[in-house]
Amino acid sequence: MVTRVGILGARGYAALELIKILLRHPAAEITVLTSRLEEQPQISEVHPQLAGRLDLGLEPFELDSVAGRVDVVFSCLPHAASAEVVCKLVDAGVRVIDFSADYRLDDIDIYQKWYEVEHPDPGRVGQVPYGLPELYREQIVGAELVANPGCYPTSAILPLAPLLSAGLISTSGIIVDSKSGVSGAGRTPKLGTLYPECNESISAYGVGAHRHTPEINQLLSAAAGSGVEVIFTPHLVPMNRGILTTIYAPIEGDASEQELMDALRGAYQQEPFVQVVEHLPATSHVVGTNYCHLTARRVGDRAVLVSCLDNLVKGASGVAVQNFNLLMGLEETTALVDGAGA
Amino acid sequence: MVTRVGILGARGYAALELIKILLRHPAAEITVLTSRLEEQPQISEVHPQLAGRLDLGLEPFELDSVAGRVDVVFSCLPHAASAEVVCKLVDAGVRVIDFSADYRLDDIDIYQKWYEVEHPDPGRVGQVPYGLPELYREQIVGAELVANPGCYPTSAILPLAPLLSAGLISTSGIIVDSKSGVSGAGRTPKLGTLYPECNESISAYGVGAHRHTPEINQLLSAAAGSGVEVIFTPHLVPMNRGILTTIYAPIEGDASEQELMDALRGAYQQEPFVQVVEHLPATSHVVGTNYCHLTARRVGDRAVLVSCLDNLVKGASGVAVQNFNLLMGLEETTALVDGAGA
Amino acid sequence: MVTRVGILGARGYAALELIKILLRHPAAEITVLTSRLEEQPQISEVHPQLAGRLDLGLEPFELDSVAGRVDVVFSCLPHAASAEVVCKLVDAGVRVIDFSADYRLDDIDIYQKWYEVEHPDPGRVGQVPYGLPELYREQIVGAELVANPGCYPTSAILPLAPLLSAGLISTSGIIVDSKSGVSGAGRTPKLGTLYPECNESISAYGVGAHRHTPEINQLLSAAAGSGVEVIFTPHLVPMNRGILTTIYAPIEGDASEQELMDALRGAYQQEPFVQVVEHLPATSHVVGTNYCHLTARRVGDRAVLVSCLDNLVKGASGVAVQNFNLLMGLEETTALVDGAGA
Amino acid sequence: MVTRVGILGARGYAALELIKILLRHPAAEITVLTSRLEEQPQISEVHPQLAGRLDLGLEPFELDSVAGRVDVVFSCLPHAASAEVVCKLVDAGVRVIDFSADYRLDDIDIYQKWYEVEHPDPGRVGQVPYGLPELYREQIVGAELVANPGCYPTSAILPLAPLLSAGLISTSGIIVDSKSGVSGAGRTPKLGTLYPECNESISAYGVGAHRHTPEINQLLSAAAGSGVEVIFTPHLVPMNRGILTTIYAPIEGDASEQELMDALRGAYQQEPFVQVVEHLPATSHVVGTNYCHLTARRVGDRAVLVSCLDNLVKGASGVAVQNFNLLMGLEETTALVDGAGA
Repeated sequence: MVTRVGILGARGYAALELIKILLRHPAAEITVLTSRLEEQPQISEVHPQLAGRLDLGLEPFELDSVAGRVDVVFSCLPHAASAEVVCKLVDAGVRVIDFSADYRLDDIDIYQKWYEVEHPDPGRVGQVPYGLPELYREQIVGAELVANPGCYPTSAILPLAPLLSAGLISTSGIIVDSKSGVSGAGRTPKLGTLYPECNESISAYGVGAHRHTPEINQLLSAAAGSGVEVIFTPHLVPMNRGILTTIYAPIEGDASEQELMDALRGAYQQEPFVQVVEHLPATSHVVGTNYCHLTARRVGDRAVLVSCLDNLVKGASGVAVQNFNLLMGLEETTALVDGAGA
Repeated sequence: MVTRVGILGARGYAALELIKILLRHPAAEITVLTSRLEEQPQISEVHPQLAGRLDLGLEPFELDSVAGRVDVVFSCLPHAASAEVVCKLVDAGVRVIDFSADYRLDDIDIYQKWYEVEHPDPGRVGQVPYGLPELYREQIVGAELVANPGCYPTSAILPLAPLLSAGLISTSGIIVDSKSGVSGAGRTPKLGTLYPECNESISAYGVGAHRHTPEINQLLSAAAGSGVEVIFTPHLVPMNRGILTTIYAPIEGDASEQELMDALRGAYQQEPFVQVVEHLPATSHVVGTNYCHLTARRVGDRAVLVSCLDNLVKGASGVAVQNFNLLMGLEETTALVDGAGA
Repeated sequence: MVTRVGILGARGYAALELIKILLRHPAAEITVLTSRLEEQPQISEVHPQLAGRLDLGLEPFELDSVAGRVDVVFSCLPHAASAEVVCKLVDAGVRVIDFSADYRLDDIDIYQKWYEVEHPDPGRVGQVPYGLPELYREQIVGAELVANPGCYPTSAILPLAPLLSAGLISTSGIIVDSKSGVSGAGRTPKLGTLYPECNESISAYGVGAHRHTPEINQLLSAAAGSGVEVIFTPHLVPMNRGILTTIYAPIEGDASEQELMDALRGAYQQEPFVQVVEHLPATSHVVGTNYCHLTARRVGDRAVLVSCLDNLVKGASGVAVQNFNLLMGLEETTALVDGAGA
Repeated sequence: MVTRVGILGARGYAALELIKILLRHPAAEITVLTSRLEEQPQISEVHPQLAGRLDLGLEPFELDSVAGRVDVVFSCLPHAASAEVVCKLVDAGVRVIDFSADYRLDDIDIYQKWYEVEHPDPGRVGQVPYGLPELYREQIVGAELVANPGCYPTSAILPLAPLLSAGLISTSGIIVDSKSGVSGAGRTPKLGTLYPECNESISAYGVGAHRHTPEINQLLSAAAGSGVEVIFTPHLVPMNRGILTTIYAPIEGDASEQELMDALRGAYQQEPFVQVVEHLPATSHVVGTNYCHLTARRVGDRAVLVSCLDNLVKGASGVAVQNFNLLMGLEETTALVDGAGA
């Protein structure tokens, strides 16, 4: 039995990645692609990578029309715009995996402060599982709506959560220094992401002000069982894809490097998409895949953690398909092992 | 039934790509990986991309040992070194797909002139099918040995062969100007492919002297039914993967742009991996896939043809798996559609 | 005595490069910078590279105000918009170096056909020296207005002109295959030059239709003494700066490679900015400088010429300062030798 | 009067940058270039960028021969190899600017522990001024030997030293997260710096173990007046040049962001090459120049400092020429303002 899938906001990079993964999914068929722009060409004109692979036109979003032709929707719309239609789809009985931040934060005040909009669907805030299967698998299975995680948060939470849970690192004084490829900035033309502006250059941005900060704090606080507030600094790196996150956390109780590694290995040995490695990983090791590679070092009185993942796969569309598989009762790794990235 | 597969020379970029494709192949199991270097670590130490995906050590090549554990071998060894072991494997009843140039040229004198070595297996020269399924599918099916094509030749032959066959372009005065990413230069450290040497730079190399020239000429001559000698200039472009080839060929008999496009479409409409497109293609449209995108324009009295492909997939490991599938009587597209590139 | 200099359209990449060259020019002082956008910040806010180096605000162009505060103007405005103000500045006694194509083509019909606008200053068309000092030095000295050359044309004309003049290559059948970095596409945000669109990708564009084609033809025809029509194909390469041009021209009268090289050396041995080299040059050899490196090979019955230059320096702002120096009776190399690129 | 200059180890990237700066220096003439490799071609064969600009052959180092033809030597040799010849040159009356780490550390035990060699010139250890003019200008003027600073240390010391001196940040808990272009890894072919290995990838390396750590600690301790031990993590970024350093330091005494910025501005307002900027700087703002751009933010109880510089200019050859100018009693900015980078 094949699940009919719709993708809202299909012009972007995460949507393209999602389409490529779904094209090799044996139990999914893409039936609807929407765009908010006036022009509505074939998807292969928007993404020439799909020439000969997907013959489907873009269309504007209309609730009744879309709801009748899909079982599951992936929403790649921006925050606020997403919840506005997601809530109607869920009401109409469509299952949704939402790429936006709209349902990630449990506290509506924090959402409204950081995103500077009124939430279009306040009733569901705090009720939606956070779509990181490694932490919330049980809640995701069978859910009607999943909040797909942010790319930076995933790269920070995966290495930190087990160490906080185990009490091996302090809840205060954690620094998260992330480096991302440019696809993370989206596909809308802007001076800052023009090729000659970011090629041969690295820069920090959003210092102390990036919207993924409260998301990281919320998830780490849950893992630690008490309030965690990190300092988070994202950087823009001249490459298309990939996030490398370097984390500095004060050691609690004199844990050794071995203990840090053991805690990570213990947490992830059964996980298909998290690899705890001995060496220092590079983003090229995971780009095009749904894997996250991570490792730990002890330097002085700090744990130095390094993680990497593909922001468009494990940080967006790959984990979304993990969530889709869980929602639909399929093998979680379907379409994702040894094949994410064509 | 699963075919046991060995890969000779498994440290390089084409071998890594081949491993990734085979890992998702339902009818292949990698059982042997060899390396000529003294150190013989696990493959995931050589290619950290494979951490948790393939648990196999490198080993030195020993005929008896290898021949007993494989049904098919992919040889990624350099020319001459390849034929030296390939001939023994074939004699031992192992089917081989040879990535080197050793069995591509039909004329041993041309081989020895361009490659400046004595051929280790002269008896088979001229007897081995050229592994471009779009042109030689019938000869490949069931063969014991296939000469996997060069990456540049594939990018030149696919757009040119149908036009030469149809007599729409002249056999003389053809210019092939190719641009390749740096992975084409291999994984052995050399000054010329050091990052700061080729980043932010483009250069021509091997002008009038590149070894793919006689290969292009041989295949085009076969297509035309008479001698073709192209001028071929490769360039090194600051990107990892991808070849774009721009070809200038004198129009024969005043063929229109429409006729050029029709001839290409006619030749490839049934081909799963060749897309004749209206727009000017870019290498990013095909990188990570086994597709070749190509188009034609008429400018003055010339046909201007543009083709692109991923040098490591359609230009090496993807077409090798096409050949493997044909050899083994499998669906030709197995493991290659919507999935080549993880 | 210091010349007061104005720059029109100071937000772009060529303008930044020009400012950096002029900042080390002992006889030039930048006094006016204009922009057509509403916002008019300090130039160092637009180009952070200039922090602490140039303290000047942008301003809208007003003829009287500007004309009274400058001796020479460099216009970096787009075609048509440029001639519209350039003609008034020249009438007001200001000397102008025009980066646009407005005064490059001698034939107003060809201009209007290729640029699809009515020429704002038809009277001067055909009267303005083409600012390539290696060919037109005498006409530039003391001129009131100079048409600064296009970047692609310079890379094609410098290697071809001497060989055409000497009758060593044919006037017909010349193919010019150029590869350019992305800064050549300007600083206005567009999807096509967004980082993830052109990084890790090469593509051809404007096949048979690029506006530099008639410019190349005009200059080569002048060199040859009879009509030349090239086929010109530009490509976009994932790097910031640099053009490499590979040219294929039928040999006339069986000229040897040595004769080709001798003709080039003879033409340029006194030229400070053209280096005829034995090796195949790369754009990294000239980026950040005002040099053009070029060489010749004979392959079969073709001359294969390779040239490279920095599109923003020798292809735009460096040659503009060469022209400025000539206009003002200064040493031609002032501010350009061993120093173009900070 | 022109100073005769020799460069030891002229094949590398810092040496090329140094040559380009010296070529526009009005008071310096390059008379000797040495290399330790057997082949000794013209420098323009090793660095094609210098074609037509410097006509000088490489030669092996011989003390008497070199000492007789130079007034000042820049040594670009690796550590230990450098001190071995530098000490002899200084004894012979030649002034030396040493790019290696040999004379940077005051404590010979720390040197020998981190560099794992015996120091060839122990008597001078601790006697040589550290060549960062912003901190040690007086000691450099007239010195016979200067220890040119490391690139990472400069990027960390410039933002941190004034804040430590002013007591605005704590001496403990400082984290230095640096990101460098690949030219910093040198010009010797290695797998790790091969183009396809580091393109489209970012990685951390030398976590807790990079040799610049003790250098940073020594200089910061001097600035603070008490022991400072940072955690330093370098990263390799896919770009040729540039270092961006992001620093996290606990605020002392509740200093505001304004106070942090004021302290930086106060320290550097007279400095020609340090720009304290309001915005978050990018490496592209300084590449090709001798400038360091830096800024400060307060996030929670931390100062977040961001600095950037060109590792080959302000991080190596530019500061070396600053030191040269100071040594020789010249204007410190000679050849460095608005012109470093051709």
